[in-house]
Amino acid sequence: MPLSDLPLDILREYRPEVAQPADFDDFWATTLAESRRAGSAPVLTPASTPITQLRIDDLTFAGFAGEPIKAWVVRPVDTRGPLPTVVEYNGYDGGRGIAGEKLLWATAGYVHVFMDTRGQGSGWGSGGDTPDPHGSGPSVGGFMTRGILDPADYYYRRLFTDAVRLLDAVREFDFVDPNRIAVTGGSQGGGITLAVAGLVPGLQGVMPDVPFLSHFRRAVEATPEPPFTELVRYLAVHRDAEERVFETLSYFDAVNFARRATSPALFSVALMDGIVLPSTVFTAFNHYAGADREIEVYPFNGHEGGQMHQWVRQAEWLAERI
Amino acid sequence: MPLSDLPLDILREYRPEVAQPADFDDFWATTLAESRRAGSAPVLTPASTPITQLRIDDLTFAGFAGEPIKAWVVRPVDTRGPLPTVVEYNGYDGGRGIAGEKLLWATAGYVHVFMDTRGQGSGWGSGGDTPDPHGSGPSVGGFMTRGILDPADYYYRRLFTDAVRLLDAVREFDFVDPNRIAVTGGSQGGGITLAVAGLVPGLQGVMPDVPFLSHFRRAVEATPEPPFTELVRYLAVHRDAEERVFETLSYFDAVNFARRATSPALFSVALMDGIVLPSTVFTAFNHYAGADREIEVYPFNGHEGGQMHQWVRQAEWLAERI
Amino acid sequence: MPLSDLPLDILREYRPEVAQPADFDDFWATTLAESRRAGSAPVLTPASTPITQLRIDDLTFAGFAGEPIKAWVVRPVDTRGPLPTVVEYNGYDGGRGIAGEKLLWATAGYVHVFMDTRGQGSGWGSGGDTPDPHGSGPSVGGFMTRGILDPADYYYRRLFTDAVRLLDAVREFDFVDPNRIAVTGGSQGGGITLAVAGLVPGLQGVMPDVPFLSHFRRAVEATPEPPFTELVRYLAVHRDAEERVFETLSYFDAVNFARRATSPALFSVALMDGIVLPSTVFTAFNHYAGADREIEVYPFNGHEGGQMHQWVRQAEWLAERI
Amino acid sequence: MPLSDLPLDILREYRPEVAQPADFDDFWATTLAESRRAGSAPVLTPASTPITQLRIDDLTFAGFAGEPIKAWVVRPVDTRGPLPTVVEYNGYDGGRGIAGEKLLWATAGYVHVFMDTRGQGSGWGSGGDTPDPHGSGPSVGGFMTRGILDPADYYYRRLFTDAVRLLDAVREFDFVDPNRIAVTGGSQGGGITLAVAGLVPGLQGVMPDVPFLSHFRRAVEATPEPPFTELVRYLAVHRDAEERVFETLSYFDAVNFARRATSPALFSVALMDGIVLPSTVFTAFNHYAGADREIEVYPFNGHEGGQMHQWVRQAEWLAERI
Amino acid sequence: MPLSDLPLDILREYRPEVAQPADFDDFWATTLAESRRAGSAPVLTPASTPITQLRIDDLTFAGFAGEPIKAWVVRPVDTRGPLPTVVEYNGYDGGRGIAGEKLLWATAGYVHVFMDTRGQGSGWGSGGDTPDPHGSGPSVGGFMTRGILDPADYYYRRLFTDAVRLLDAVREFDFVDPNRIAVTGGSQGGGITLAVAGLVPGLQGVMPDVPFLSHFRRAVEATPEPPFTELVRYLAVHRDAEERVFETLSYFDAVNFARRATSPALFSVALMDGIVLPSTVFTAFNHYAGADREIEVYPFNGHEGGQMHQWVRQAEWLAERI
Amino acid sequence: MPLSDLPLDILREYRPEVAQPADFDDFWATTLAESRRAGSAPVLTPASTPITQLRIDDLTFAGFAGEPIKAWVVRPVDTRGPLPTVVEYNGYDGGRGIAGEKLLWATAGYVHVFMDTRGQGSGWGSGGDTPDPHGSGPSVGGFMTRGILDPADYYYRRLFTDAVRLLDAVREFDFVDPNRIAVTGGSQGGGITLAVAGLVPGLQGVMPDVPFLSHFRRAVEATPEPPFTELVRYLAVHRDAEERVFETLSYFDAVNFARRATSPALFSVALMDGIVLPSTVFTAFNHYAGADREIEVYPFNGHEGGQMHQWVRQAEWLAERI
Repeated sequence: MPLSDLPLDILREYRPEVAQPADFDDFWATTLAESRRAGSAPVLTPASTPITQLRIDDLTFAGFAGEPIKAWVVRPVDTRGPLPTVVEYNGYDGGRGIAGEKLLWATAGYVHVFMDTRGQGSGWGSGGDTPDPHGSGPSVGGFMTRGILDPADYYYRRLFTDAVRLLDAVREFDFVDPNRIAVTGGSQGGGITLAVAGLVPGLQGVMPDVPFLSHFRRAVEATPEPPFTELVRYLAVHRDAEERVFETLSYFDAVNFARRATSPALFSVALMDGIVLPSTVFTAFNHYAGADREIEVYPFNGHEGGQMHQWVRQAEWLAERI
Repeated sequence: MPLSDLPLDILREYRPEVAQPADFDDFWATTLAESRRAGSAPVLTPASTPITQLRIDDLTFAGFAGEPIKAWVVRPVDTRGPLPTVVEYNGYDGGRGIAGEKLLWATAGYVHVFMDTRGQGSGWGSGGDTPDPHGSGPSVGGFMTRGILDPADYYYRRLFTDAVRLLDAVREFDFVDPNRIAVTGGSQGGGITLAVAGLVPGLQGVMPDVPFLSHFRRAVEATPEPPFTELVRYLAVHRDAEERVFETLSYFDAVNFARRATSPALFSVALMDGIVLPSTVFTAFNHYAGADREIEVYPFNGHEGGQMHQWVRQAEWLAERI
Repeated sequence: MPLSDLPLDILREYRPEVAQPADFDDFWATTLAESRRAGSAPVLTPASTPITQLRIDDLTFAGFAGEPIKAWVVRPVDTRGPLPTVVEYNGYDGGRGIAGEKLLWATAGYVHVFMDTRGQGSGWGSGGDTPDPHGSGPSVGGFMTRGILDPADYYYRRLFTDAVRLLDAVREFDFVDPNRIAVTGGSQGGGITLAVAGLVPGLQGVMPDVPFLSHFRRAVEATPEPPFTELVRYLAVHRDAEERVFETLSYFDAVNFARRATSPALFSVALMDGIVLPSTVFTAFNHYAGADREIEVYPFNGHEGGQMHQWVRQAEWLAERI
Repeated sequence: MPLSDLPLDILREYRPEVAQPADFDDFWATTLAESRRAGSAPVLTPASTPITQLRIDDLTFAGFAGEPIKAWVVRPVDTRGPLPTVVEYNGYDGGRGIAGEKLLWATAGYVHVFMDTRGQGSGWGSGGDTPDPHGSGPSVGGFMTRGILDPADYYYRRLFTDAVRLLDAVREFDFVDPNRIAVTGGSQGGGITLAVAGLVPGLQGVMPDVPFLSHFRRAVEATPEPPFTELVRYLAVHRDAEERVFETLSYFDAVNFARRATSPALFSVALMDGIVLPSTVFTAFNHYAGADREIEVYPFNGHEGGQMHQWVRQAEWLAERI
Repeated sequence: MPLSDLPLDILREYRPEVAQPADFDDFWATTLAESRRAGSAPVLTPASTPITQLRIDDLTFAGFAGEPIKAWVVRPVDTRGPLPTVVEYNGYDGGRGIAGEKLLWATAGYVHVFMDTRGQGSGWGSGGDTPDPHGSGPSVGGFMTRGILDPADYYYRRLFTDAVRLLDAVREFDFVDPNRIAVTGGSQGGGITLAVAGLVPGLQGVMPDVPFLSHFRRAVEATPEPPFTELVRYLAVHRDAEERVFETLSYFDAVNFARRATSPALFSVALMDGIVLPSTVFTAFNHYAGADREIEVYPFNGHEGGQMHQWVRQAEWLAERI
Repeated sequence: MPLSDLPLDILREYRPEVAQPADFDDFWATTLAESRRAGSAPVLTPASTPITQLRIDDLTFAGFAGEPIKAWVVRPVDTRGPLPTVVEYNGYDGGRGIAGEKLLWATAGYVHVFMDTRGQGSGWGSGGDTPDPHGSGPSVGGFMTRGILDPADYYYRRLFTDAVRLLDAVREFDFVDPNRIAVTGGSQGGGITLAVAGLVPGLQGVMPDVPFLSHFRRAVEATPEPPFTELVRYLAVHRDAEERVFETLSYFDAVNFARRATSPALFSVALMDGIVLPSTVFTAFNHYAGADREIEVYPFNGHEGGQMHQWVRQAEWLAERI
């Protein structure tokens, strides 16, 4: 419940260097190119739902290696012409759930696309529908150590690629205005948001909330609560793996995406957050390359962050930019 | 995490007697009559919100003793003629929050009215806006022991009256079809739902989820987690107050409302719930007077119950009845 | 169990500035004047108790707004002439209990007056007997956020006024020597003690133990255990209320009373206290205006502090001054 | 927080058989005789204390094997003639503390004698002053397994003998009326009380509160909280010791003392007690040999039991008998 | 710490029916046949280790689908002729670790083979070396829900097959006497032991300690501690999956293997075990088909069970049979 | 789970002064001389065990005051000529267990001697066999405060003397090469290892793992988890004992032994250890007098440290020196 990290005035200046592999850009260019080659056309099917005042479709698109990934697409019923669009990624262990769980952006007039997280979706909520058809070497329960010994095998390589490929798919929809797209997500969804922001130029808004997956070294050494602790547990057992693990993680550190991201950004951070330490969020924020960047600070919240308060803030901020 | 109560086959038959004061009906008739006399006209003001695809109004209506109570009213934008309506009550320690937090029923074509809970709304979420302008004798932190020594002073007398008075107000709106109204709520909101169902005839649906406030004697003796434990703590200190406390509670036991309620009902219960024990829910359900009653059982859930899964179930169930 | 705060050598110098409203003195002068006008004569009634070697009376006096407040008055049986007197305030959530629970000062030859805490007295011990007949806006369970949005409504305005008014009453008793009065209390009782010390001149002793309610900003940001966490929870929900909340609290910060208090003082502090952080105690102590001030440090205790050890210390210290 | 054991109506009839060694009486007769032979005269020294309205002496008496044991003796200042006397034993891990901590019985006109517990007195409160100069085989932290493999070596053999020898000493004081003596204590003190009641005839009152040390078999198998768990931990490691351990314990089971005790008795029990299970208390109560026996039930309390409420109850009950 | 389940006398008779799929034997016959067809010859390589008094080899053998699985083989240095052999499986989340961690059976003159657990080995200890190259649908962290919706995909299908295939491999070693082989393991390793016992006839000893994976229905409903709770968490989210999940689990329930197992068996069970409930162990034991079966009961232990005590018991028991 | 202490680069330089009594050397010289005078010849008896590939003897030797202490001696079966030897001490609350629990050093060709810890051995594992026939003044559960008010009475005086006397005994065995002896142990065993290293010259290896008992002042003030907290609890009750307690502890601080120790040393430390803080380990390491000293750092482990990984490291390190 008390402050979980450094005082705010120090956080505002906190900008440590974070390891960056020399072939970071090559790695991702190759990864995306390969998956794009494996792609197929997205499929939209009307969802079965009691909801009548919005239109909800079940989307299947080609993610990493062309594997089928699910998402929900929610939009106003009376759509004339393409609409501005918000693509959202989910928090750790959650799935896209049942059609209709996330309605806010659509009721505000946007197309809203909510991506399922491969393999996840069994920890809380109403479930997910997307498998992760990739095995793994020895790993800790959870997803953070699956394939951790090689960037090519790491779980987040697949997930981040899904997220980029979703943007590829969304831009082709006739009801989407490809020049008015924003990305967002909380916690893990915020980390994915930053990854996408570093890999996809020309977004109108990047809105990571209490983003996870930044500055792994500090996160691993200082975070008291799961899921960063999965990495600690792995390293506690695999005592010789420290170097390889952090080498792998450097390809996925949100900080390394942030320093390549130039679209307008609205972050949030919570100063009593024990799951995502504020210093890791500020590391990403202070490295963020775009000049138009803001961060909303919630001094007394834990990892729940700003909740509806932050959504209203985002909606106002985005309306000025999209 | 394991089952928190009796096995399901025993729960289905569990129907213990629960104390009922001789003047129960008089008490409530008098209470409601007094507050109705103190009433004033409800006021609807458009809410400030980024939401454009639904209409949201800020409602102030006259609750207990005519005191002003807040609610959100959300409905489809293009309303022609009166609509079926769902009135919802909130869980313990929550407030109505920010306009737009509860959108499901309105996107399904209903008028949705979400009542603020007097005095509450600071424990989680985005806050409440309604004071409870009544002091109290010595009480435990929380709301369950405020005024506990006299039914006339007890907090829930005021809250249940607010809930009934909200129905009075809602029925007068021109966009509401007064013959197609349902009530619902989870946890404390489910307890309020049952109270309303026992006090207001002619509802088209009564949908309490994992309802709180039933069979106080058992709840106090057997519930491991808050907030029933507030009563335990009070009784542990006020060692002479047992009789008076349970006397007061008998006027507010959801079981005593359930045996007077005849509208169609859809309950839910979760068998690993440590906050609201399944046996207390089944006591209310098995005493429920209406013949058209069902209960959805979630065998592996805690107090979160069925979540979106249950909402879809409710929407389908209600569509057949309203 | 480890040290809960800064090292002792730093604490001894720790004297941060604490916000102080411009009209602090006016606020309290007005508050006390109003309540004094509403006052009525105290009433003493012999308590029913098996105790025969001391005399115990049940006191009702006029507190805030003239409202009746209870206290126990315990004194030696054979009293000739007025006696030195110790007035004591209670810790959070406790009540004055049953006659006879606090006997030490009386057995040492003092008149001992133990004030009930309005509304409290249901959390532990044997109960309280004093209502707090004031409602509240949305608040967290507990007493720390009741009326938090306006100093005029704040719970502690009423409680501190009760405490001062008790001194007014006590000074009139013929068995009390009005020039030999000390005040004391542990935790919340210590915070009240400091408030009284800042509002009432001419006391012979001010003995706050592990006093609560000092330096709210730091307490809110850094205290791991309840009840300061009630404020955190409120602020986490009411995300826009930070400024108003701390504005209100500045009228009640024990530090602001301490800097007006000039009577001799004996504090205590415990360095492993996770409920009242040592830095907040030292802030009050280091700002205390009186030159005759000491602090007893318990390096290995938690919030229980010095217990009987500290009482003996107090009795010796007070005997030299009263 | 919920009920920790069987329902009350079943507890009232709960009277299982408890193992009893054939030589139980011999064992204790021999033990006491040996220690009585080793005895020396008690020594009373005025205590240093700020207390003036009662007289407090520091007592050293000969306990087990004649070893010096400490106690506090508190009594009214103006004593003419011998007084009725209450001898009290302490709870687990506590010591007699500082002179003046226990004043109630003396302020009610009794001589009050509060025995220190050998070796204990470092777990909470203000400390103890009595060593236990006996080593032990391998044992768990705490006192419950010291010497557990042989009744002759068991810690409680020494402690119970101290308790009986204190009565021997007290009866000789000229200010004590030897025909008006009661014994009492809470938790471990209640267990000692029962042991004394079984070993010393002719007491005017036996008042065990939430007494510990009854029905070891059930206590070990079912108690969730320390200190019975010390026995579990020992047995978990010493997997072959079960038979010897329970054989030893049968010489110290309060139930076996209760069935020999004939003095008037007032028990207390708390139904939410997770440290001393109600079923173990009722086993002792239902086996108690005296016809004049009552039990005060606290349905909503944990191990704190009735506190001041129970003391008033005891004072009234004892006044009728002494 | 208290008993975690039914009393021992009831457990001894506890033999509930457990669901059994009609094609259970076909399913396993087909599974094993397929993997046997995919097999390749095992490879033994001397391990690098400071140990000189025993010989340790690193084994790679063909498991499920012929996938390479690791194990350690430890044996006496001076081996003349084939030796009796003990094959051991590991507990949940553990790996085979570093060569030399398990030495007991080899120092007692046996060949000891310790199988690595595919995918596991990162939760505690010194790690594992075997990947599980199979992806999964949405699953909870851990291994218990990977592929849970279809017996063909379920993680334990692969793991149990590995375990059987290890026996196939071991029987071919010239230093192993194929007519003197026993299997053992604790917790998950005990569950695997039972699976092997049901699938492989002619073993000389089956020694499951506190075996996991029995009577899933009860385990899921009643176990307070992980990892059975992984299933609860999955079912709490996938609210429609109950039937399919338990259908899948019925192919892997150790009870269904136990009723097919006829080799001599020595079980162990711990009555204060909150991870593997004693009732689930007794269900497997009471259904065990072999007439020569015993169970060692540890009344005061948790999931650690008998530890070295049980190994000595096993060594003596096995020496009489092998 | 996060780092429990200072960052590694600061720890490497962390070398605070630690109090050292003037008569430290005299105290220990006298203590050892007295016990040596009381000594008797060690007795070796073959242990009953299923183990055949190593030889195990049950050793009884004369420890402090000549009291009999147990140990296990394990060695290769075919021993020609004296062997290098490793003497090991155990962690807190553990006993030597059952013959055969510690086999590693013997399988690597060493004589391995594993000392029982007097009085301990009931907290975990398979038990101990050595009593501590010395009583104590008031003490906290556990062993850390037994006799704490006088160095002559303190528990660790006896235990450290046992440890030195074991070396005396071991050096006389014909199968031991007295010029090739190393000492080791984890946690408490590491603290004993350092004590022996400071008291016994000419060892070939000193290998303390995550050693306990260093820099008591810091440990007491900053360690969150038991058993250092036993000292905190004692000091919290015995509020006047601080000076005497730390005076006593200064005779037993591993740092004061380390600065006298000159044999080659291999430490280990775990940076997420909450039981033995890394800063206390580095204080001992940085004061260690021998020039040939190394420390293995486990950055992500808690108190389990390096486990088998560290043993392999030790075996390699020792092989180069012995």
